[in-house]
Amino acid sequence: MEQLGRVLCIITGASRGFGRTVAKEMARLVKPRSVFIVVARSGDELRTLKAELAESDLEVRCVVVDLSLTEAPEMVVRAAKEASSPDIEHLILVNNAASLGDVSRFTKSFTSMAEVNAYLSSNVSSALCLTASVLQAFPEQSGLRRCVINISSLCALKPFCSWVLYCTGKAAREMMFKVLAEEEPDLRVLNYAPGTRETVPRSNGTRTSLLKHRQFSMRRSTIRTCLRCLVRSLGKIRTSSRCYRPSLALYRVALWG
Amino acid sequence: MEQLGRVLCIITGASRGFGRTVAKEMARLVKPRSVFIVVARSGDELRTLKAELAESDLEVRCVVVDLSLTEAPEMVVRAAKEASSPDIEHLILVNNAASLGDVSRFTKSFTSMAEVNAYLSSNVSSALCLTASVLQAFPEQSGLRRCVINISSLCALKPFCSWVLYCTGKAAREMMFKVLAEEEPDLRVLNYAPGTRETVPRSNGTRTSLLKHRQFSMRRSTIRTCLRCLVRSLGKIRTSSRCYRPSLALYRVALWG
Repeated sequence: MEQLGRVLCIITGASRGFGRTVAKEMARLVKPRSVFIVVARSGDELRTLKAELAESDLEVRCVVVDLSLTEAPEMVVRAAKEASSPDIEHLILVNNAASLGDVSRFTKSFTSMAEVNAYLSSNVSSALCLTASVLQAFPEQSGLRRCVINISSLCALKPFCSWVLYCTGKAAREMMFKVLAEEEPDLRVLNYAPGTRETVPRSNGTRTSLLKHRQFSMRRSTIRTCLRCLVRSLGKIRTSSRCYRPSLALYRVALWG
Repeated sequence: MEQLGRVLCIITGASRGFGRTVAKEMARLVKPRSVFIVVARSGDELRTLKAELAESDLEVRCVVVDLSLTEAPEMVVRAAKEASSPDIEHLILVNNAASLGDVSRFTKSFTSMAEVNAYLSSNVSSALCLTASVLQAFPEQSGLRRCVINISSLCALKPFCSWVLYCTGKAAREMMFKVLAEEEPDLRVLNYAPGTRETVPRSNGTRTSLLKHRQFSMRRSTIRTCLRCLVRSLGKIRTSSRCYRPSLALYRVALWG
């Protein structure tokens, strides 16, 4: 059950929902004295998660920050550097944090540059700059496997009425991670679209179901699928075709790196 | 030769290259007293274009502005409202303006939120907010055809090493316009990827060839292809399948609306 080795795992949007469950499931797959850096805006929920994770023999650090802030990537990297140790075998960054944007309005209502800029900063720039900062701070080296996971959505591929910000942000992120996979031969880049979930990112303080409500058990199982894929990918030999775009039915998991 | 009727045509990035040629070719296809709003940062080049266009019987207004500025969409709309007249038959917005970003660096070097935010503001938010502002200012009405063109790139579909900002921005724009096409049944949304061009958007004051240099004549012919498609699309009956994604070979022109 320790297939992932001694990891340094950074998870954004970890305070609840999908990110929180990823953290807890991942904790079952790592060696003792692994390090978890959990990132979110909500300090209280993060600290509860930390207490739960600490029951395993893990070092857990909370970084309470809004990822759209300029200083956010540096804060996360600083915490990771402080908590990390030389015997880490596996670096895993889970880019999960996302917001819905206002899904009650059509494209023609988005006339405010400030609103669109804020959304893109929070959902696209933040994922790019955090990933870049983490890869710089933990460069390629012998004995260290590195994996970046992008939590995606069908909205990255398919347009939905009134979801312009979410669809645009997810499409942008997918392309960004595809370019990364092309550039970094040592890196595993995993794209994962969990499908319908019980909770989706907050919009104006409310929780909205993307299509319909489902049971939490399904979310947990889909997260296990994601992690199984991650575990399997560790032993894989890279091929020249690094960019794997399966059919829509298989879209959930795409291994790009 | 007046297939487009009496138009109000707004073209961004019109001062040179592809945008400038679109303006000149479009001018050959419109009725006298059509209105052209040409938008770019460079006032001198815009004024030269204006002088050239004014040889036809056109009303031409220059809007000298950096499209990443908050006030840019309003400035363009104000000029369009002032110059427009009730006998306009056809509104055409060409979202052409784009910048390359720094294509000398790999993804892992983009750690600055300010840099990435500035790029996305200039290349994604600006196109969304300008399009939204124009559609609000010139709403659906009897006798007015409306068409929005997105100038795209193969980089919207395919990742290229060291082109992370450009690929990400183009992928984001494509999705944005696909959502728009889903939402607005009266609107024609045309996606056009010109292919290799002699000049591509400026990066740090230099002009760079995307793949290799080609002749200007090719650029002119590809623009004519774009405009022919636009003209043909005017008579088309909408089908329920509005989002047309052809194979890569046919990708250049995709009619989404």
